[in-house]
Amino acid sequence: MPKRARPRQRARQRQSNTRRELVSGEILEKAAALFAERGFSSTSLQDVAQALQISRTALYHYVGGKDELLATLVRGLTRETASSLEAIAEDETLDPLERLAAAIRSMATRIANNPGRFRLLLVSEGSLPEPLASEHQEARRRSLRHLTAIVRAGMDAGVLRALDEHVAAFAVLGMCNWVAWWYQPERAANGGAEQLADELARLGVAALQSPVERAPTGRAGVAHALDLLRQDLDYLERTLDRPGDG
Amino acid sequence: MPKRARPRQRARQRQSNTRRELVSGEILEKAAALFAERGFSSTSLQDVAQALQISRTALYHYVGGKDELLATLVRGLTRETASSLEAIAEDETLDPLERLAAAIRSMATRIANNPGRFRLLLVSEGSLPEPLASEHQEARRRSLRHLTAIVRAGMDAGVLRALDEHVAAFAVLGMCNWVAWWYQPERAANGGAEQLADELARLGVAALQSPVERAPTGRAGVAHALDLLRQDLDYLERTLDRPGDG
Repeated sequence: MPKRARPRQRARQRQSNTRRELVSGEILEKAAALFAERGFSSTSLQDVAQALQISRTALYHYVGGKDELLATLVRGLTRETASSLEAIAEDETLDPLERLAAAIRSMATRIANNPGRFRLLLVSEGSLPEPLASEHQEARRRSLRHLTAIVRAGMDAGVLRALDEHVAAFAVLGMCNWVAWWYQPERAANGGAEQLADELARLGVAALQSPVERAPTGRAGVAHALDLLRQDLDYLERTLDRPGDG
Repeated sequence: MPKRARPRQRARQRQSNTRRELVSGEILEKAAALFAERGFSSTSLQDVAQALQISRTALYHYVGGKDELLATLVRGLTRETASSLEAIAEDETLDPLERLAAAIRSMATRIANNPGRFRLLLVSEGSLPEPLASEHQEARRRSLRHLTAIVRAGMDAGVLRALDEHVAAFAVLGMCNWVAWWYQPERAANGGAEQLADELARLGVAALQSPVERAPTGRAGVAHALDLLRQDLDYLERTLDRPGDG
């Protein structure tokens, strides 16, 4: 019997972990939105609980306190971004263009899934307490270093246009970071964060790709042509939907 | 004699106007940096004067008060941006790609020349007093409308890739707006704001430009969308026929 019980226990444990993560994610996103809107010092844990429609006691089940909440908000995202960019920059199984696309996809997905947290980071950067402020700056610098390395590798391989690597990296960063200011997950017509991330990856690669490399051959060429066809079909669909047209 | 004095007087007046504009620009940029850093309510005109190393009385020569300063900061930039995008969207002497490039150049130059003011706008958007807040929102909406119109015109003409026009517009906006977060005019190695704006215009156009040169179809709406599909099917066929491919 205990032998059969263990997997079930584990399953229950997994379920409860997933639920915990989901709830924690919701708490973080809501707290970030409130902090960004009213300022960290003018927002109480009671306000956060109220916005989530749970009791303050229930909130303490997930969160140790306001400072811990801010630290989790800041640390999670910036460290995750830096680590994932590092992994992509060092991934030998990807060619330079795939690495650039993967980096954009990773950044854009994370931002589209946590827009409130990203806005908070940007708005409160100047007023973060130490050592959080230094940690955040350090993680940002790491992210920029890895992204610049990815871009430079593409330029060195001749597949990206040779331009100032910082301008190139910041152009791509801006495209991704701006998502926090306009993307509304609940309004996204279809596809959601993943589809947006794919689209931005295509735009970013096209922006930086060397014009000589633009007409891919072989399987890549066919995939490319199919991609265009798919875009045109979507365009047709939108044209049909546009009032007064067609 | 009075006849000869007048041009000189005018020259002196022009000089003084230019000086006034230069000083006002510096005051606005410095005030914006302080407001963004410490918050509007925690920054006094005395702080602004101190940062500029002038007396409070001298500052009053240029500025009516703190509220007026904030209003000038917000109104100037957002209205200017909206009006210049409108003019570009309606400029019949430019083709769709030139219009897109001009729009990016205009936005990027303005941001690179006023990074502190742009950061302030973004950071304080949620806490602007009325009617400033509504005016600002309205100007932002106008800007987005004109930029989206520029992008859509390029898609309709077949020179831009047919993708969601909002994603396309926001990708370009993000590239430009992010400049406020990284560009340091005093560190810019060479070329400065103009050169950066040219580079971003190239990147933005490359991101959105259709990779296949499609002939103008001369038709509109659904007919145009179907023509584009036919052209891309031809492109797929050519790709499959290419020797060594498929």
